[in-house]
Amino acid sequence: MTVPSQQFASDNYAGVCPEAWAAMAEANHGHAVAYGDDEWTGRASDAFRSLFETDCEVFFVFNGTAANSLALSALCQSYHSVICSAAAHVETDECGAPEFFSNGSKLLAAPSPDGKLTAGAIRTLAVARQDIHYPKPRVASVTQSTETGRIYRPEELLAISETCRAHGLSLHMDGARFANACAGLGCSPADLSWRAGVDVLCFGGTKNGMAVGEAILFFNRPQAEDFDYRCKQAGQLASKMRFLSAPWVGLLETGAWLRNAAHANACARLFADRISGLPGLEFAFPVEANAVFLNLSDTAMAALRQKGWRFYTFIGGCARFMFAWDADPGQVDALAGDLSAILEAEAG
Amino acid sequence: MTVPSQQFASDNYAGVCPEAWAAMAEANHGHAVAYGDDEWTGRASDAFRSLFETDCEVFFVFNGTAANSLALSALCQSYHSVICSAAAHVETDECGAPEFFSNGSKLLAAPSPDGKLTAGAIRTLAVARQDIHYPKPRVASVTQSTETGRIYRPEELLAISETCRAHGLSLHMDGARFANACAGLGCSPADLSWRAGVDVLCFGGTKNGMAVGEAILFFNRPQAEDFDYRCKQAGQLASKMRFLSAPWVGLLETGAWLRNAAHANACARLFADRISGLPGLEFAFPVEANAVFLNLSDTAMAALRQKGWRFYTFIGGCARFMFAWDADPGQVDALAGDLSAILEAEAG
Amino acid sequence: MTVPSQQFASDNYAGVCPEAWAAMAEANHGHAVAYGDDEWTGRASDAFRSLFETDCEVFFVFNGTAANSLALSALCQSYHSVICSAAAHVETDECGAPEFFSNGSKLLAAPSPDGKLTAGAIRTLAVARQDIHYPKPRVASVTQSTETGRIYRPEELLAISETCRAHGLSLHMDGARFANACAGLGCSPADLSWRAGVDVLCFGGTKNGMAVGEAILFFNRPQAEDFDYRCKQAGQLASKMRFLSAPWVGLLETGAWLRNAAHANACARLFADRISGLPGLEFAFPVEANAVFLNLSDTAMAALRQKGWRFYTFIGGCARFMFAWDADPGQVDALAGDLSAILEAEAG
Amino acid sequence: MTVPSQQFASDNYAGVCPEAWAAMAEANHGHAVAYGDDEWTGRASDAFRSLFETDCEVFFVFNGTAANSLALSALCQSYHSVICSAAAHVETDECGAPEFFSNGSKLLAAPSPDGKLTAGAIRTLAVARQDIHYPKPRVASVTQSTETGRIYRPEELLAISETCRAHGLSLHMDGARFANACAGLGCSPADLSWRAGVDVLCFGGTKNGMAVGEAILFFNRPQAEDFDYRCKQAGQLASKMRFLSAPWVGLLETGAWLRNAAHANACARLFADRISGLPGLEFAFPVEANAVFLNLSDTAMAALRQKGWRFYTFIGGCARFMFAWDADPGQVDALAGDLSAILEAEAG
Repeated sequence: MTVPSQQFASDNYAGVCPEAWAAMAEANHGHAVAYGDDEWTGRASDAFRSLFETDCEVFFVFNGTAANSLALSALCQSYHSVICSAAAHVETDECGAPEFFSNGSKLLAAPSPDGKLTAGAIRTLAVARQDIHYPKPRVASVTQSTETGRIYRPEELLAISETCRAHGLSLHMDGARFANACAGLGCSPADLSWRAGVDVLCFGGTKNGMAVGEAILFFNRPQAEDFDYRCKQAGQLASKMRFLSAPWVGLLETGAWLRNAAHANACARLFADRISGLPGLEFAFPVEANAVFLNLSDTAMAALRQKGWRFYTFIGGCARFMFAWDADPGQVDALAGDLSAILEAEAG
Repeated sequence: MTVPSQQFASDNYAGVCPEAWAAMAEANHGHAVAYGDDEWTGRASDAFRSLFETDCEVFFVFNGTAANSLALSALCQSYHSVICSAAAHVETDECGAPEFFSNGSKLLAAPSPDGKLTAGAIRTLAVARQDIHYPKPRVASVTQSTETGRIYRPEELLAISETCRAHGLSLHMDGARFANACAGLGCSPADLSWRAGVDVLCFGGTKNGMAVGEAILFFNRPQAEDFDYRCKQAGQLASKMRFLSAPWVGLLETGAWLRNAAHANACARLFADRISGLPGLEFAFPVEANAVFLNLSDTAMAALRQKGWRFYTFIGGCARFMFAWDADPGQVDALAGDLSAILEAEAG
Repeated sequence: MTVPSQQFASDNYAGVCPEAWAAMAEANHGHAVAYGDDEWTGRASDAFRSLFETDCEVFFVFNGTAANSLALSALCQSYHSVICSAAAHVETDECGAPEFFSNGSKLLAAPSPDGKLTAGAIRTLAVARQDIHYPKPRVASVTQSTETGRIYRPEELLAISETCRAHGLSLHMDGARFANACAGLGCSPADLSWRAGVDVLCFGGTKNGMAVGEAILFFNRPQAEDFDYRCKQAGQLASKMRFLSAPWVGLLETGAWLRNAAHANACARLFADRISGLPGLEFAFPVEANAVFLNLSDTAMAALRQKGWRFYTFIGGCARFMFAWDADPGQVDALAGDLSAILEAEAG
Repeated sequence: MTVPSQQFASDNYAGVCPEAWAAMAEANHGHAVAYGDDEWTGRASDAFRSLFETDCEVFFVFNGTAANSLALSALCQSYHSVICSAAAHVETDECGAPEFFSNGSKLLAAPSPDGKLTAGAIRTLAVARQDIHYPKPRVASVTQSTETGRIYRPEELLAISETCRAHGLSLHMDGARFANACAGLGCSPADLSWRAGVDVLCFGGTKNGMAVGEAILFFNRPQAEDFDYRCKQAGQLASKMRFLSAPWVGLLETGAWLRNAAHANACARLFADRISGLPGLEFAFPVEANAVFLNLSDTAMAALRQKGWRFYTFIGGCARFMFAWDADPGQVDALAGDLSAILEAEAG
């Protein structure tokens, strides 16, 4: 047995892409003013405004936990609630960070067979309780692309944001893999965010090829009032900010943000195509971004692990494969080959 | 007028030192498991244990605000209080972060003419109120080296930690410039921390030559219980952790941590020596680490700014000059020369 | 149509019972030391210790929201979680108070067809996630009697507390209607609390006949460390404490606490017996304490409301009737009569 | 030695006044809807609106700790700060409650020789720091009457509120003894609150003759948005609300609120007049409300305690005497007599 030279358990296993690295290296010359009053930070902010074709407020923080939790806490008070899908990362994998940053806001998790939040589900939760004994819904949060590898189309987002407005909710987007959604649909960032009614977007840098860092974009600028104080108090203001902002310059100005995402998506597609039609295999969700979820037998999963492959199981026990910006097509092929062999042997 | 090519307003203006950079670059090969289960993180933790000659618990977070606030919140509940100097960074420059992370712990700031906290001051505050209408003191926090550029000697720390034990307080050390203290005294890290009774140390990486990152060392291991959950919930767990830990390997294994600090201290010494004895100049505090504080006339300060030099004023209006790991002795000399010219002209 | 002179929508509609009132009136003579250092507070605490046959720590707070939230926050940190039934009041009707007081602890709500939490459900949630991306379970919370009017028997509680110990969980009991459970089973308070492994009990005074006030009993005394500070900081320390403690003396020393509960339970029983066997009626849950839940047709519910009766609908749409310490059997009879007439007419 | 039958250590030692008690007793008839939807609560709210000659929002909570902390938390976010006097109760005697309820807002305590906050002191603190490393001032809080027994006159409040508006601060008034201020100045409640620019007033009921309870009045109504949710989540919504609101009806509709306060003030005046001019005695602050602060020798204080009198020492070691709504003039006289005897003996 050969140990795989690359795993597809998480797109966090990848390193820093060349464009981000080069910008960091360039930023590492001489001195620069601290806390964001440097040239790189201004340039990265402008790159976002240019990419999104709007004069949004831009903030740089260290990771996605903080980005989403800070954004949500800016949109609601402790006695408010946030409507999200039951599969939402903020609900399932942040160790209570949204509740901590907001001092107690409750997440109202809508059941969701495919991980997507719908306008209907938002409406149901928004009106379910109208009394002061239950936290008042104030925000809806969607993940783009979703934790299940699905992508919201502009018209879906528009339906969601209309429902939000009708019920007094702000719309937050967890964009840990926002680039993958843009690449997947061939849509502009603006069409998948503010033009579709998104108030605040957390744009993920880590999965997109950075070492560390996420950007928070407020399209609804008044909601960003004093947000710099909020970041500072919550331990999310980098003193040597240029190292958090320069990689964004590298990603955005060169177009690497989209190339990286497109490559990751393509590898997911490649994997899906290679294994499609195999016996004893079912796609748990349509493959739209950089993730593939498979319903496999326990013995098949065990056999795959036996061959050295690592992966997590997800909702309902399906196997999750994530493809990073630097996914190696050769290794994708190797994984597909191993899985084919296992399933065909099982099918006898 | 020539604009200075390097400023001494803050030691956060410097970039990343070669040793830290090289380790990051080396870490950026291939894939690595996320969230700290990688080799670099284990190696960095061991490097700390080896440097401190003890089996402490080690955690890596993004910045000093978070490091100190998380450590303090692990040592007390919301209805407890933290005794510190009135000059302490946690009191004066963290935008209420300690109160936020702890959900309301009050800082009891002891008046301090020179920025140091003393055993006597701790005792006074520890016994001042014994009723439930005032937060119960539970922690004392010292900064090493202090915000005034002073260094606690081991015997001072021992006196402090004895007082802490006598009053049921834990001892926390904000070591944003801990390396400068070690270099300044020629003391081992162990002698300036756990051997002197420190329970938790936040070891500063940013000012020591990193892009981002601080280490939290629990010498009193039971106090670290579930601290990994605390970091995660507070948005301080890096997914690509290797980029937060590898630079520490670079700093610690090569000895750069101490060389960087010693160089910074030497530049402060150089500056102090060059200007010592000038008319109309007074050192606000003894120069022991990498900071120089000067009492200057308003006209002298204005003249210095006129020549392009940037600096902050501090307690009582004195001018603060901070020297980074990469301070340029030539620029130090230029600053000293400009200041000399100004003061001598003023003196007539 | 005659408007009913008493409603059974909530047992919070009742006033103060004579025994509690008399004690308050007696306490309102002359001056008394503030904040609990008075004789009434000591006497009420001792009455609890005597009733529970153990030397527990006793605290008096204003209401159930605070009692349960403060107790839970004493048992866990912000990054911990609390396992409870999906029907638990702390989950469904406290507007996020437990999350607020604890600064973010997540409630893990176990699905529960009848509102009870079981040892098995606790075990399932306790082991479901073992990673730092999810809040670590630290407490289980049961409501006695439950929000569905059920009562945990001592052996059920023992099974639950054993499971808690096996998984490192403390056991909290929301005893808003604890007296009703004691009366319902004929069990001693000790048998339904610490002897069955309960660590902390919130004993409800309001529903038991007081104007305001709940008692928090720590059987596991070390868990009460500094709890007085916690109460004070959270706005739950009464300055004129005697008015919060004296009614307890009235309730406990006269036995009114048990008589009140027994009467309430008897009225629920009376109502249930009167309507049992009617066509188109189903008891949603067995009647064990002071609540009756009925599955009724929408038309029957509308007809009942038409006759002036107020009631809430609960899980699955059933109608809830609650009987207070002062429930009027004549009115219970009137309600039963109206319901009978409606159902018989519907059945044709 | 005879033990005094009444002490003047605290105005919290008194019980419930007849008018408040009678209203509670009257409220204790039959059933009433819970959580404030009852007639007494509506009537009490209207009584406040009538007394204050304005359509303010009114909320009833359990105690002063909660009233002030909740009001402040409604006026600022966690990264904001509250300017108050160093003698303010919220700073000195709430065990960090404002920080807890607001999730970390810092109190900026202005030095104050007499316990009063001035427009100048507010301005100084409001402009001292303008950077994101320090919590942004958003509220000023004054106590009426002050913790030192002083009263702000309308013109002082106007100067303060103008400064507040100039610096973007809301103005909060801790009115634990607001009635004493009205009685002391002969001013209408409106003149001492909203007409002078106060945004939110916490009107103290406990010291005014109630068993428990404070009212929060929002004159700036938009600031009360969702405040009912905030109260509920923070454990400050009484289920049997009528018992918290009825006593207010008793106090306000009968005019007892003002009579009680006037009597308390008169007793302070009586005491001050009786001892004025005694040797070795100095009034620490002018006597304006219901408090008397005396600078006495240590031996005189010891002798007074020896005679059975209880009192607290305050800022700078002066002795504090507080007179409640039911202060007994005979006992006031006894205290004055004992003090006279002691001081005359000391003077030889």
